[in-house]
Amino acid sequence: MTDRRTYSYLGPAGTFTEAALDQVPEARGHHWKPVHNVGEALGDVLSGVSHAAMIAIENSVEGGVSTTLDALATQPGLRIVGEYLVNVNFVLVAAPGTTLDDVSVIAAHPVAYAQCHSWLGAHLPKHSHVPAASNVASAIGILDGSLPAQAAIAAPGIVQHHELEVLAEDIGDNANAQTRFVLVTRTTTPVPPTGADKTSLIVELPEDHAGALLELLEQFSTRGINLSLLQSRPIGDELGRYRFVLDADGHVYDERMADALLGIRRFSPRVVFLGSYPRADRKIVQYPERYADDVFVEARDWLRGLIGGEPEA
Amino acid sequence: MTDRRTYSYLGPAGTFTEAALDQVPEARGHHWKPVHNVGEALGDVLSGVSHAAMIAIENSVEGGVSTTLDALATQPGLRIVGEYLVNVNFVLVAAPGTTLDDVSVIAAHPVAYAQCHSWLGAHLPKHSHVPAASNVASAIGILDGSLPAQAAIAAPGIVQHHELEVLAEDIGDNANAQTRFVLVTRTTTPVPPTGADKTSLIVELPEDHAGALLELLEQFSTRGINLSLLQSRPIGDELGRYRFVLDADGHVYDERMADALLGIRRFSPRVVFLGSYPRADRKIVQYPERYADDVFVEARDWLRGLIGGEPEA
Amino acid sequence: MTDRRTYSYLGPAGTFTEAALDQVPEARGHHWKPVHNVGEALGDVLSGVSHAAMIAIENSVEGGVSTTLDALATQPGLRIVGEYLVNVNFVLVAAPGTTLDDVSVIAAHPVAYAQCHSWLGAHLPKHSHVPAASNVASAIGILDGSLPAQAAIAAPGIVQHHELEVLAEDIGDNANAQTRFVLVTRTTTPVPPTGADKTSLIVELPEDHAGALLELLEQFSTRGINLSLLQSRPIGDELGRYRFVLDADGHVYDERMADALLGIRRFSPRVVFLGSYPRADRKIVQYPERYADDVFVEARDWLRGLIGGEPEA
Amino acid sequence: MTDRRTYSYLGPAGTFTEAALDQVPEARGHHWKPVHNVGEALGDVLSGVSHAAMIAIENSVEGGVSTTLDALATQPGLRIVGEYLVNVNFVLVAAPGTTLDDVSVIAAHPVAYAQCHSWLGAHLPKHSHVPAASNVASAIGILDGSLPAQAAIAAPGIVQHHELEVLAEDIGDNANAQTRFVLVTRTTTPVPPTGADKTSLIVELPEDHAGALLELLEQFSTRGINLSLLQSRPIGDELGRYRFVLDADGHVYDERMADALLGIRRFSPRVVFLGSYPRADRKIVQYPERYADDVFVEARDWLRGLIGGEPEA
Repeated sequence: MTDRRTYSYLGPAGTFTEAALDQVPEARGHHWKPVHNVGEALGDVLSGVSHAAMIAIENSVEGGVSTTLDALATQPGLRIVGEYLVNVNFVLVAAPGTTLDDVSVIAAHPVAYAQCHSWLGAHLPKHSHVPAASNVASAIGILDGSLPAQAAIAAPGIVQHHELEVLAEDIGDNANAQTRFVLVTRTTTPVPPTGADKTSLIVELPEDHAGALLELLEQFSTRGINLSLLQSRPIGDELGRYRFVLDADGHVYDERMADALLGIRRFSPRVVFLGSYPRADRKIVQYPERYADDVFVEARDWLRGLIGGEPEA
Repeated sequence: MTDRRTYSYLGPAGTFTEAALDQVPEARGHHWKPVHNVGEALGDVLSGVSHAAMIAIENSVEGGVSTTLDALATQPGLRIVGEYLVNVNFVLVAAPGTTLDDVSVIAAHPVAYAQCHSWLGAHLPKHSHVPAASNVASAIGILDGSLPAQAAIAAPGIVQHHELEVLAEDIGDNANAQTRFVLVTRTTTPVPPTGADKTSLIVELPEDHAGALLELLEQFSTRGINLSLLQSRPIGDELGRYRFVLDADGHVYDERMADALLGIRRFSPRVVFLGSYPRADRKIVQYPERYADDVFVEARDWLRGLIGGEPEA
Repeated sequence: MTDRRTYSYLGPAGTFTEAALDQVPEARGHHWKPVHNVGEALGDVLSGVSHAAMIAIENSVEGGVSTTLDALATQPGLRIVGEYLVNVNFVLVAAPGTTLDDVSVIAAHPVAYAQCHSWLGAHLPKHSHVPAASNVASAIGILDGSLPAQAAIAAPGIVQHHELEVLAEDIGDNANAQTRFVLVTRTTTPVPPTGADKTSLIVELPEDHAGALLELLEQFSTRGINLSLLQSRPIGDELGRYRFVLDADGHVYDERMADALLGIRRFSPRVVFLGSYPRADRKIVQYPERYADDVFVEARDWLRGLIGGEPEA
Repeated sequence: MTDRRTYSYLGPAGTFTEAALDQVPEARGHHWKPVHNVGEALGDVLSGVSHAAMIAIENSVEGGVSTTLDALATQPGLRIVGEYLVNVNFVLVAAPGTTLDDVSVIAAHPVAYAQCHSWLGAHLPKHSHVPAASNVASAIGILDGSLPAQAAIAAPGIVQHHELEVLAEDIGDNANAQTRFVLVTRTTTPVPPTGADKTSLIVELPEDHAGALLELLEQFSTRGINLSLLQSRPIGDELGRYRFVLDADGHVYDERMADALLGIRRFSPRVVFLGSYPRADRKIVQYPERYADDVFVEARDWLRGLIGGEPEA
């Protein structure tokens, strides 16, 4: 197949990332390439190895996924073209024959581990933790002996791929936990607006912290735009310097969003536009009538008229 | 002289308005038409009888001149093209032979009367007041007997035009009093920017009062624009409904001012642009570097690039 | 009657101010003293001649009444204790036997004249105007010959006091015109709250104009307090310096209002508290639940607890 | 020694946390108890096992330390009483006799690993990574064979505790990297102010996200208070719900800070006051004169006077 495309995702098969990629109709029948981390996934896109990469961007326990946000902040040339939600729940798995009483060390990706805190405190109060590189790596590690643990935290789908026994189901602290994934390509024109869009940005603030963040937020509030994500991330050069990752309701083709972006660009030393794309929940964006496109167009016509010396109607 | 132009001003000769018109080089050698009130002056401009009219717009005792502000707010088709300051001081005059002891009733224009309150309280505590239509009318009225008063408050120049005796000089309460005048023509393209410009507007607020005024002020403060005048005026239909007259530092050709005007137009049910014109004091407008024209231009280029799908430099 | 009190008002009998005083139950049966101007009325109060004075503070054509606002701003020791609304309408009156055709000159107080502009333009397009000191003075002036006019603009009640003929009724431009009056005493404790109160202030702004006004308005908006009046008045020392007269919904005994007053006092070089008193319309003040008194009390208790080192409940 | 106190810290000996505890004069000569994680350290404090615990709260690569912030947000009864900075730099260590050429797998705590990204890319491009539970655990793991790696990333002090050879020094990407630690006790009265203090809070926002954060920031900016840390943390129940961790310049005994806390308490559904304590850098807090304590006191006196009916001075 000549136009067969490659999609990179955090593998191996069985991860939540694979479940997200499964939601992309355009990806079906194409080549899915499992990678080891977000950096590799985005590298595939930038080098042209892959057409797109599916990466986790926010989860309900850890918030914005640090490595993803930092990679998007520092690697130019990428654009988000789609958003996908995956319900997150966890099982405790072990090699066949293992019982809960045998478990003293648990292998788990740190984020997954953090999401099972209550269950572990109640059922295995004396366990210790060995960190693993992914939810799948934790499971494989206990099978091949590369991780010194008797049990692993993994996604329920893991048992379809590996010979493992489920010691406990639904061990996550939050039954409604979700992870939000985005599909990323090389920089391209924005996905056409659907009315149910969001726009993602990363913004560095000028010098003074508090006042500058206020000003950033006002760029949205004064144009009737809601934010669904605001995440601070250290810039990394010294303590106390932060950049902000934002998801704003609406599309860059909306007049109010374009106007907000202009305002932000004027005051920020660095803005990364990550893309405008359809929301996973397909909820139509609501905004006050006074920020509608035609209000912006009418104001420009008025200004043009008065500069041209036309008497008012 | 074929291109002889007419300038209307609040006459007769000897008023402060005439002193303002005297500051306009282009008006020299043209026809100066004295009129009886601001409405007549602006009517001359709108009907084409006059090329321009000189009218008082703000003084240090009464603030914005109500009749001027209301006329500008309600009569479309006018534009301010220049600003002029006149030092205001007053004399008490009477028919020759009169002494201060003879004075029990004083004729004065209400604004002039208000500006001499302290002197009158100290020197003529028992006087009563007869209002006159102008500073000159008060003086003429005591000469021709049409006003039942023994003395009049007038501008010092009055004695060059009429046979009057000065009973007291410098009777104004404020030695630094000034009145600000504007030259008004029919709607035309804005006067070219000089770097020392102001822009005058009249803005009606949508429904809710306090929040809407906050928003109006923020349209300027968020673009580094200072206001040198903010005057409330009742709209006149019911108690508590106000419009606002504003002078903002800068020219409509400045990017930040144009952007502020767009913002105001979008939220106000009615904006009257009165003009951008050189300040009387020729003071160069200062503003933060971040609101310079090239910052606005660069932001637009950036936005155009990202919509076009160009990778960042 | 030993405890007979004196109330000063802008006389003579028949003025709108008298109609306002007529609305004060406590004033009935006491001595009503007509005075010639606002300054005299407030002087009566300060000197102890009068218990209280009724003065006009805002009308729908001129906005805040300049002389009243300036007197309240500069004379310490006064407090507003009540508010009263009077419907304002005008009649054209003349000596018995006069017809409309006989009228070429009209005597009128300038504010009343301004409010009848449309009717006069339609019915007496060629009239000229003689200014009078009050609505009653205009009528008396045409009777005793002291004003050279054939007709006068006055309040309808004028015919109960003087032998005059009504040539036309309801000649005001605005059928809903009202004037707002306040009853003023010497400084005293605030009138007890009724739930339908307003608080009047005069505030001078520190140096910079636009930003400081923004900050003043935010002191109210950030505590859920609406403003029903915001009027600029020149301070009078130089062009461009303004103070602001405000009416805010609520009583100084409300926690949110007291907190706003503290905030204003901290940033303003000069605040005049004119009083908290029942609104003329008796409308109960609405405010968001989050600004209720108990929210303020609870926060203080919390702060006291944490400073005291108490563990949270 | 009867009054010997216990201090818990993330051990074992040789960690950066121990270096922080080393900066506390009051801790010298007392018992230092190494623990395995932040939860254990805080548990020791709450249960009374320890007098205080030293925990990392912010580093220049990862920002706020998630587990610390989440523990402080959810466990009532704790208070920060001191702040300490530790310069963070890393060495690559191995068992004696190992050379850089022998290294293909590196053991490292994920945060330390992330901070050495550049050096590793340049000098060991083909390495793979085994995560360890702490900087010390990584070193021990290569000695006792529990981690399948030939070298470990650790703090320089590690060689004082273990027989290790330094393969490379200063391998961190950022020469100025620091970690900020806090000393935490059970709830107590605040540490007395020094003039160089900070106040730490955790605040949950009411419903709407963007507007509420604006309002939170304004509580500080409108009282002249700077923020040195603003970190979002997911509340954990669903996507998009965040709490904010803040460090504000000043002490709860400062009037402006107390007033800001009252404002925050009134609007936030949940505020955790973590403490006011001396800044690690001992920098005196600067603030505009208008927010000085006496300005607050004077305003309260003024309000009391006007409620009492006293005439102004």
